[in-house]
Amino acid sequence: MKKNIITISREFGSGGRTIGKKTAELLGIPYYDKEIIEKIAEKTGFDKKYIEQQGEYSPTANTFAYSFIGRNLNGVSNHDYIWAAQCRVIEELAEAGPCVIVGRCADFLLKDREDCLHIFIYADTEAKVERIVKLYGETGQSPERRLREKDKMRSINYKYYTEREWGRVHNYHAALDSGMIGVERCAELIAKLARGNE
Amino acid sequence: MKKNIITISREFGSGGRTIGKKTAELLGIPYYDKEIIEKIAEKTGFDKKYIEQQGEYSPTANTFAYSFIGRNLNGVSNHDYIWAAQCRVIEELAEAGPCVIVGRCADFLLKDREDCLHIFIYADTEAKVERIVKLYGETGQSPERRLREKDKMRSINYKYYTEREWGRVHNYHAALDSGMIGVERCAELIAKLARGNE
Repeated sequence: MKKNIITISREFGSGGRTIGKKTAELLGIPYYDKEIIEKIAEKTGFDKKYIEQQGEYSPTANTFAYSFIGRNLNGVSNHDYIWAAQCRVIEELAEAGPCVIVGRCADFLLKDREDCLHIFIYADTEAKVERIVKLYGETGQSPERRLREKDKMRSINYKYYTEREWGRVHNYHAALDSGMIGVERCAELIAKLARGNE
Repeated sequence: MKKNIITISREFGSGGRTIGKKTAELLGIPYYDKEIIEKIAEKTGFDKKYIEQQGEYSPTANTFAYSFIGRNLNGVSNHDYIWAAQCRVIEELAEAGPCVIVGRCADFLLKDREDCLHIFIYADTEAKVERIVKLYGETGQSPERRLREKDKMRSINYKYYTEREWGRVHNYHAALDSGMIGVERCAELIAKLARGNE
């Protein structure tokens, strides 16, 4: 069966965004990543930078800090308000036609659609360290720690909103090691899977 | 890079053995499954049926029962003795040339070889139930329970000998949902990955 919507969940530094873009090119369909932030900004009125940070921030990672998070007049936290907008944006994008969506718990939000292909991209630490240092340069923190912290936040955020384990194979149709397979070939394989038996 | 040795770990009922056989056919290389039992039998003198059972039996699943397990004159349990023979057999098979090996913790035993491709095959419960009822018929136990118990044993056995989590993506180069992708296409994808950029 042909799959119109491809969601890509990815470890930080695994090249998941690049793979998403290349897959979209191969299939000739739109790729959504930053566009999702823009659409959430339109719906909520929040600043794009703030939405981006909130998407990575986990409500349960620091309960003390969470009590200081902005809330609207109905007592809903900004984080939950952004989440509600994100759900609508992702459903609307999927409804609009074939596309590739990277991150933002799209695998969970679209889990009941039959026309979706859910992919998880990962790699070993060595490959990810090489990639983030090349792309983003060195920082005061060790690359290993940057990887750990970023993925920990993603994992807690995912668990908080979906009650599922991030990176557990059963949440996806395929999981690919981009370090061994390579970014180009991952995109080719995903495109092949999406095309079905065409 | 071309991968000569393919290890396939699989959930019970996911069609991993069939996928292994088909991959071997596509690549024109031998497929090892029952042959491993025969070779362990040659090395240890144990009966093939007994070896097969021990392979699925986990030493930690029932500590009380474990104290009654047969031991040889050096105090080594039959289970550990079979495990040691299994390690040698799998290393020898990999050393002998390209092949597909299904199960038996081969992904762990060959983890340091550069020429290996490690695959995990899984599926959702519905697909696995359909498969085991078709292949093995009904039994007194519900198919869901048969799946759970078999995979639980595999998982505990794997953990006991490898100290790794069975089914965790980082132990493999790719994980494929055979229920969605289909047995034939899984084999094609694995063969494609094994061929590398040829």
